[in-house]
Amino acid sequence: MTPEFLRTLLTALAGGEVTVEEALRRLERFPMDPVQRHGRVVARLDTQRGLRHGFPEVVLAAGKRFSHLRAIVGRALEQKNSALLITRLTRKRVARLQAEFPVLAHARGTGCLFRQPETDVPPAGLVGVLCAGTSDIPVAEEAALVARLMGARVETWYDAGVAGLHRLLAADALLRDARVFVVVAGMEGALPSVVGGLVDRPVIAVPTSCGYGAALGGLAALFGMLNSCAANVTVVNIDNGFGAGYVAGLINRL
Amino acid sequence: MTPEFLRTLLTALAGGEVTVEEALRRLERFPMDPVQRHGRVVARLDTQRGLRHGFPEVVLAAGKRFSHLRAIVGRALEQKNSALLITRLTRKRVARLQAEFPVLAHARGTGCLFRQPETDVPPAGLVGVLCAGTSDIPVAEEAALVARLMGARVETWYDAGVAGLHRLLAADALLRDARVFVVVAGMEGALPSVVGGLVDRPVIAVPTSCGYGAALGGLAALFGMLNSCAANVTVVNIDNGFGAGYVAGLINRL
Amino acid sequence: MTPEFLRTLLTALAGGEVTVEEALRRLERFPMDPVQRHGRVVARLDTQRGLRHGFPEVVLAAGKRFSHLRAIVGRALEQKNSALLITRLTRKRVARLQAEFPVLAHARGTGCLFRQPETDVPPAGLVGVLCAGTSDIPVAEEAALVARLMGARVETWYDAGVAGLHRLLAADALLRDARVFVVVAGMEGALPSVVGGLVDRPVIAVPTSCGYGAALGGLAALFGMLNSCAANVTVVNIDNGFGAGYVAGLINRL
Amino acid sequence: MTPEFLRTLLTALAGGEVTVEEALRRLERFPMDPVQRHGRVVARLDTQRGLRHGFPEVVLAAGKRFSHLRAIVGRALEQKNSALLITRLTRKRVARLQAEFPVLAHARGTGCLFRQPETDVPPAGLVGVLCAGTSDIPVAEEAALVARLMGARVETWYDAGVAGLHRLLAADALLRDARVFVVVAGMEGALPSVVGGLVDRPVIAVPTSCGYGAALGGLAALFGMLNSCAANVTVVNIDNGFGAGYVAGLINRL
Amino acid sequence: MTPEFLRTLLTALAGGEVTVEEALRRLERFPMDPVQRHGRVVARLDTQRGLRHGFPEVVLAAGKRFSHLRAIVGRALEQKNSALLITRLTRKRVARLQAEFPVLAHARGTGCLFRQPETDVPPAGLVGVLCAGTSDIPVAEEAALVARLMGARVETWYDAGVAGLHRLLAADALLRDARVFVVVAGMEGALPSVVGGLVDRPVIAVPTSCGYGAALGGLAALFGMLNSCAANVTVVNIDNGFGAGYVAGLINRL
Amino acid sequence: MTPEFLRTLLTALAGGEVTVEEALRRLERFPMDPVQRHGRVVARLDTQRGLRHGFPEVVLAAGKRFSHLRAIVGRALEQKNSALLITRLTRKRVARLQAEFPVLAHARGTGCLFRQPETDVPPAGLVGVLCAGTSDIPVAEEAALVARLMGARVETWYDAGVAGLHRLLAADALLRDARVFVVVAGMEGALPSVVGGLVDRPVIAVPTSCGYGAALGGLAALFGMLNSCAANVTVVNIDNGFGAGYVAGLINRL
Amino acid sequence: MTPEFLRTLLTALAGGEVTVEEALRRLERFPMDPVQRHGRVVARLDTQRGLRHGFPEVVLAAGKRFSHLRAIVGRALEQKNSALLITRLTRKRVARLQAEFPVLAHARGTGCLFRQPETDVPPAGLVGVLCAGTSDIPVAEEAALVARLMGARVETWYDAGVAGLHRLLAADALLRDARVFVVVAGMEGALPSVVGGLVDRPVIAVPTSCGYGAALGGLAALFGMLNSCAANVTVVNIDNGFGAGYVAGLINRL
Amino acid sequence: MTPEFLRTLLTALAGGEVTVEEALRRLERFPMDPVQRHGRVVARLDTQRGLRHGFPEVVLAAGKRFSHLRAIVGRALEQKNSALLITRLTRKRVARLQAEFPVLAHARGTGCLFRQPETDVPPAGLVGVLCAGTSDIPVAEEAALVARLMGARVETWYDAGVAGLHRLLAADALLRDARVFVVVAGMEGALPSVVGGLVDRPVIAVPTSCGYGAALGGLAALFGMLNSCAANVTVVNIDNGFGAGYVAGLINRL
Repeated sequence: MTPEFLRTLLTALAGGEVTVEEALRRLERFPMDPVQRHGRVVARLDTQRGLRHGFPEVVLAAGKRFSHLRAIVGRALEQKNSALLITRLTRKRVARLQAEFPVLAHARGTGCLFRQPETDVPPAGLVGVLCAGTSDIPVAEEAALVARLMGARVETWYDAGVAGLHRLLAADALLRDARVFVVVAGMEGALPSVVGGLVDRPVIAVPTSCGYGAALGGLAALFGMLNSCAANVTVVNIDNGFGAGYVAGLINRL
Repeated sequence: MTPEFLRTLLTALAGGEVTVEEALRRLERFPMDPVQRHGRVVARLDTQRGLRHGFPEVVLAAGKRFSHLRAIVGRALEQKNSALLITRLTRKRVARLQAEFPVLAHARGTGCLFRQPETDVPPAGLVGVLCAGTSDIPVAEEAALVARLMGARVETWYDAGVAGLHRLLAADALLRDARVFVVVAGMEGALPSVVGGLVDRPVIAVPTSCGYGAALGGLAALFGMLNSCAANVTVVNIDNGFGAGYVAGLINRL
Repeated sequence: MTPEFLRTLLTALAGGEVTVEEALRRLERFPMDPVQRHGRVVARLDTQRGLRHGFPEVVLAAGKRFSHLRAIVGRALEQKNSALLITRLTRKRVARLQAEFPVLAHARGTGCLFRQPETDVPPAGLVGVLCAGTSDIPVAEEAALVARLMGARVETWYDAGVAGLHRLLAADALLRDARVFVVVAGMEGALPSVVGGLVDRPVIAVPTSCGYGAALGGLAALFGMLNSCAANVTVVNIDNGFGAGYVAGLINRL
Repeated sequence: MTPEFLRTLLTALAGGEVTVEEALRRLERFPMDPVQRHGRVVARLDTQRGLRHGFPEVVLAAGKRFSHLRAIVGRALEQKNSALLITRLTRKRVARLQAEFPVLAHARGTGCLFRQPETDVPPAGLVGVLCAGTSDIPVAEEAALVARLMGARVETWYDAGVAGLHRLLAADALLRDARVFVVVAGMEGALPSVVGGLVDRPVIAVPTSCGYGAALGGLAALFGMLNSCAANVTVVNIDNGFGAGYVAGLINRL
Repeated sequence: MTPEFLRTLLTALAGGEVTVEEALRRLERFPMDPVQRHGRVVARLDTQRGLRHGFPEVVLAAGKRFSHLRAIVGRALEQKNSALLITRLTRKRVARLQAEFPVLAHARGTGCLFRQPETDVPPAGLVGVLCAGTSDIPVAEEAALVARLMGARVETWYDAGVAGLHRLLAADALLRDARVFVVVAGMEGALPSVVGGLVDRPVIAVPTSCGYGAALGGLAALFGMLNSCAANVTVVNIDNGFGAGYVAGLINRL
Repeated sequence: MTPEFLRTLLTALAGGEVTVEEALRRLERFPMDPVQRHGRVVARLDTQRGLRHGFPEVVLAAGKRFSHLRAIVGRALEQKNSALLITRLTRKRVARLQAEFPVLAHARGTGCLFRQPETDVPPAGLVGVLCAGTSDIPVAEEAALVARLMGARVETWYDAGVAGLHRLLAADALLRDARVFVVVAGMEGALPSVVGGLVDRPVIAVPTSCGYGAALGGLAALFGMLNSCAANVTVVNIDNGFGAGYVAGLINRL
Repeated sequence: MTPEFLRTLLTALAGGEVTVEEALRRLERFPMDPVQRHGRVVARLDTQRGLRHGFPEVVLAAGKRFSHLRAIVGRALEQKNSALLITRLTRKRVARLQAEFPVLAHARGTGCLFRQPETDVPPAGLVGVLCAGTSDIPVAEEAALVARLMGARVETWYDAGVAGLHRLLAADALLRDARVFVVVAGMEGALPSVVGGLVDRPVIAVPTSCGYGAALGGLAALFGMLNSCAANVTVVNIDNGFGAGYVAGLINRL
Repeated sequence: MTPEFLRTLLTALAGGEVTVEEALRRLERFPMDPVQRHGRVVARLDTQRGLRHGFPEVVLAAGKRFSHLRAIVGRALEQKNSALLITRLTRKRVARLQAEFPVLAHARGTGCLFRQPETDVPPAGLVGVLCAGTSDIPVAEEAALVARLMGARVETWYDAGVAGLHRLLAADALLRDARVFVVVAGMEGALPSVVGGLVDRPVIAVPTSCGYGAALGGLAALFGMLNSCAANVTVVNIDNGFGAGYVAGLINRL
């Protein structure tokens, strides 16, 4: 449920255009909407989320059974003209869900499906999304997708690892203009520190699980970023492009 | 072997209704019953367990070969009207065991098979089982199953993570009435602390392996729960719905 | 060196008010100013930092010898009307530095000394700094100090851990009004998730080393926060109040 | 604030024995009571805690400055005839607090101070507190103290490690009679599993930091206990005698 | 190469029964025998090992390519009447190697193939191999196999976990008679401590990877065993039945 | 781009043999060459790398999508007579890439493809590559390949683990003659220390992921090597034969 | 209580030399002897230990309060002509205990006090104790002390780390003659593997906490030893010279 | 013993200038020289080390008792005109050793004492030692000292962390000219990757324990460096300036 929806409904109610009964009916799934399977509640959609957070529903698919996932997505799509994002889908699940819900769009190479509501508001503000290596692109793309869904203009600059600094410095326009940065890197995770040293805006660092051996599945990059000597760096979970894009979108709205 | 069985037998013996020989025969598998494969003991059923613990046999299937598992289950089922629980079965093993032992019931979505003895005792006491997200449901269901097998009345409240507190507060009736709580959560594992702060009864926290990256396969949730600022929280192993349900059942009997 | 300083100098140069020689002299420590001890460079003050980052010099005292520290602080103070912050000082070092450099102010209970330049610009924007327990206050105060030095209005709400939710909900005005939040917590580190679920603005989570045993010196809280189920949470290093206040100050300026 | 206090007050109000003004005055620190130092709130006493949890205030002294600690204790003692417990005090702090607040009693060898309200209710139910080695006694004593403060009768059995089983089996009376057990052990932490196998009641396991090298400061015992093959074992944080005694007290009340 | 072989050869040489040339030919693979594939040395069989260690060749199959493995086994089998042991074979590799080298025997359920030389020496000394659960049997069987290959008499006692002590105490004859014990356990790994407390002979503890979650792939059991409060316990790597059986065999020979 | 290429071009330009336009055209991919897929830059080849580092392009295939990998390889091969190395390919990817780019050679057993430019410079200097066990050979071979691509003469000595020291000491010629050593070992990783004690030249230690249980995927060997009591040992990442061979090649060029 | 004591007593009883009353009196502290302080049992001496294990009482002083320690030692000394060992004493505690109990001897450099009963049995069997560096000597000396107390002849060979193999090979006589080895090493912990490869008898490896950084307080050495490629190596806890000497003494008795 | 010493002696012997007896006497401490305390060997000086490694004796003081340390140093100084280095001394030990052995020089700020033999050979080759922050200087100075003792010319560039890249790029002359680099950094440890990307010579990375919280005592920097995306980086232990300087010295000699 979006603030607009609620404002419209309450205005109509105050103006006598809808009855209290009708208003209650439209709000019956508010502030939460239980989804059931086999007589058991398997999810409680937080229909107040759009009001509280400015972004409706996000579904983390990993770990959920497909039957639960399908039920949740189906229910969420019943809310009209509202953004929906589903992350961490396997290829097979992308296909199955798109077959069932053709309204969902697929963001190539991200494992994400989404529905973006129509809007007249053009994207505003610039979010810069950088990554260190080709292997980091899927995570970076997830961040870019989410920031765009939240109304930001997004520019990307990929494969700019610190072992070839000129590849990063060539992004000078982006470094100068963006309001907030998402910087994605695996292995030693040094890129956010270097970017952080070059700009005076917030940098959201995303460690990735790229690397092997002492990369420890991304922990090496994570710990590196947490110890960044650049003071404008904050960190999210390993491979959490979604979270980084989300916070970048929030900051960009300020 | 249940306390009832032993009491009945000893009473009959004292009353001359059975001979000493017959009593010995009936007790020949007491206090342990070795199961063999290829001439080697592969398990020693603890037939005294029902007496000592009030719950007969539980078999953790994970890690056991199927041939050993089948032998153990077959032997355990020879004990009449006694509860049996088998946990951590793959789907394939569920099917194979049910085909061979139709008496076993399957608890949907838990990887558990069980036999519940007939009883005249109605469930008593209320155990509340809550979980934070849809992905935590299988572990929660395992806990609920076990608590029910131990004679408790169980109510569940799923998908009530702390990022949408109103979804938890809506469970006020359950929070007020249950004698003991099982609270299941992955990722940051914060739900048990919040529940613990709301109730004055014991909370058994179950971390799950849901999450990715810095979730560390459930260790993040585990450590969070162990550090709970609510004093009424104790913790079991990651994904150990069985253990949590078991202790909840024990506490509920007090 | 602040942007204002450079603008004034270049304007004066363009207007013929200062000679090129004089301008060069004033810039001779730009963009870096080496500090020496015993003939060896022990630090290179980044005098361009104020230009690039909007905040001049920060000195992390921990790990530095006192003789090096004193030399660095002395040199940094030669830059007039520029903010300076020194963090992680022991009580003894606070006293020694204040004795030598009376211009430095001490922020009670933080281990920080600072010089705040005079300014006509009133604080703007509201940063909310919350913490979970009394032991977390020093870290929270460090964050508040830094955000204030960066021009923010700061309000604090301390001892609001999740085991007594009503203590947090009483902060509703702050939760409604702040543009960005710093949330400090040790032990299980659950507070940022709960705050994150209540607001639609960025939350910067600071784990602290408060706790014992499985708190692992703050790692439990750190991992909990990285796995937050609230999407608007980013994380900084354990006990890094400085970094959190810095990023909050940056975001608040947008 | 205890339930009795509130019941008495409300009854008096309903009976006209106190005025609304008086009732409000008596409740003015409800449900939370902010404690200030230097104009800043440093703690919010949860005065509703006694109502919600059945145990008033517990103060974890470790990590708190002494000035904060003294302020909190002083304020908490203003609530009359209410239990108060302060844990993890150094010897020096015990002495300083007792000098200032002679009402506080010291539990030898635990680092705890406490005030136990007078009561006519005799202790009821039996809690068994066992430990594996002499070094584990302080933690066990903390647990015993807390359970006693919560109204339980407590018996202890110390130095009963698994390398000399006869020392444990000699505790047969306690093993038979207690309603719930607290079992404290460091090093490999095996005692809770063995006790758990002998009884059919809940066992709360407390790992301690006793040991060296691969004991990892108690993590070895903690992980051992979490993996207990006895199903009736739950676990609390390392050295957390308080938590174990608290939950044992809660269970004992059921 | 066995000591017997060398003694026989040198005696024959001293007696003039073989020529120096012949002796050199028979020793040409001594003290190491390089195995090649594609012109590269891929292994150097330590043909002096039988002399130095009293047990000829052991091949750890895991991690080796099959082509290398086959070449090594083939070469090793060229040494006549010498023991050979190959561990950590998959089922498929067992089948392929047996098809090619029918002389190799398979130890059911261990992933081991072996060739035992004919001998007139009967097994001597008693090694006791115990394990805690059914899932630990493969590791225990590997230890038993190795100890037997080294000339020991071996008796096993399986599924004797500490949660049902009577199952262990029933092994009193074995506990009394064996000269050395191998004790295998996963999960909390408490069995070696309990066995160690009951006997005055060396106990070699083998942690297994059985368990889940906080079992950490066997590290919990490993750390438990290293912290054993019984002084007669030493430890080998997780799942290293081979090493435990080997050392037990060595000790048994003393 | 190699130094030779640039020198030739600049000489021709200075001599008027090529026009500025032509020179610019030949340099248009310098210093970086963006590779696109679906309109997005997925890699920026560092065409200045050959100049800066003396070794052109290396592609780490692991973690990259095949479509990205193919595009990068195709582009890199457009640079004529320049070395190219692709590491960490699966067998399937080796086949697919060789089918498409027959110029690529496969180094048996390494998962590497490469193109070695023709050269008149014979290999110079001797690099010794040793490994502890047969399972370590693939990593050792990767190191040998890279050192050879960098112009070194390489000799290998495999299966020389410390449990049979005579197998190592037999490599005395190599130990005496090589200018730098790569020493590869899994499990306890002791070989580099022993080699380091025998030679007075640099030893680059490569831990491998060979082993099980407490080998921790190579971390045990890694930590062992980092703590080497031989002072001439430095370490690279687990299984990083490439890096070790690269640094050995660099050192050998000095 | 030693087997000799019990045999003598029972013989005397059977021969009528002592009365049943007297025998009971002499056995009143059997099989355990509770030690009290302030009315609480703080230790239960396992007086059956000498019978079960062949070595009477060992007291680990670390972690025990001095008052408890003194009480335990005093009580243990009441058992006549029985060995007593107290380990991990600080210098100050050594002095205080020796002042109070002059019968206790101090083993220089080990933190151990002991009482060795008079005996006519000369030491038998040879235990070899080796260590890698000078810093490892205290742990090695503890092992040597314990093995001697158990009746072994002990020879030591110190500072024989693997970076200078000739220092180890010079110990050839000891390597040839000892029945069992204790090998102590910190840092990378490679020495046990090398010794294990040279001998055909059991090697008990003791990791020490010597080293810094990645030595991880001895964990690096511990993990290295657990992964030893020599099959005759078992491991005890970090710095556990006592345990290693104890097991060596047990093996030496076989 | 240096190669020069041995060459001179053998030449004199061959020329009849010294007798065999005299030569033997001069070699009596070769190849190892046992140092005793209280009748026990506490160290075996490796007097062959200078021959094998080109650098005589290095003593790691940490972990050694002072009495052992003094004995070792005294003995080592008996070897004339030979380099000696003692590392990781506390201030107090520096003073005590210098008082006793005035020949030892102190390297300010490193905890090292050393004796540098007179030589006519001027330093040759250039080793670059860089560090990221002021706190890293002691480790960097240790590396510089060692490289100088091994005959290198050393230049340093300190406080050049990646958050202010211009401070590093200003070292262009050093980056261009040095034959090998030692790069020291704590916190996220990113500097070696950036330096590695700028140069085509070997970079030896030294992580330091500078930082707090998630710096994990230097492990974060260590893991970052091991995952460096620059291929010319190898790594040594945390704070191991000695090792890095040693290997840099060795490489510089090639």
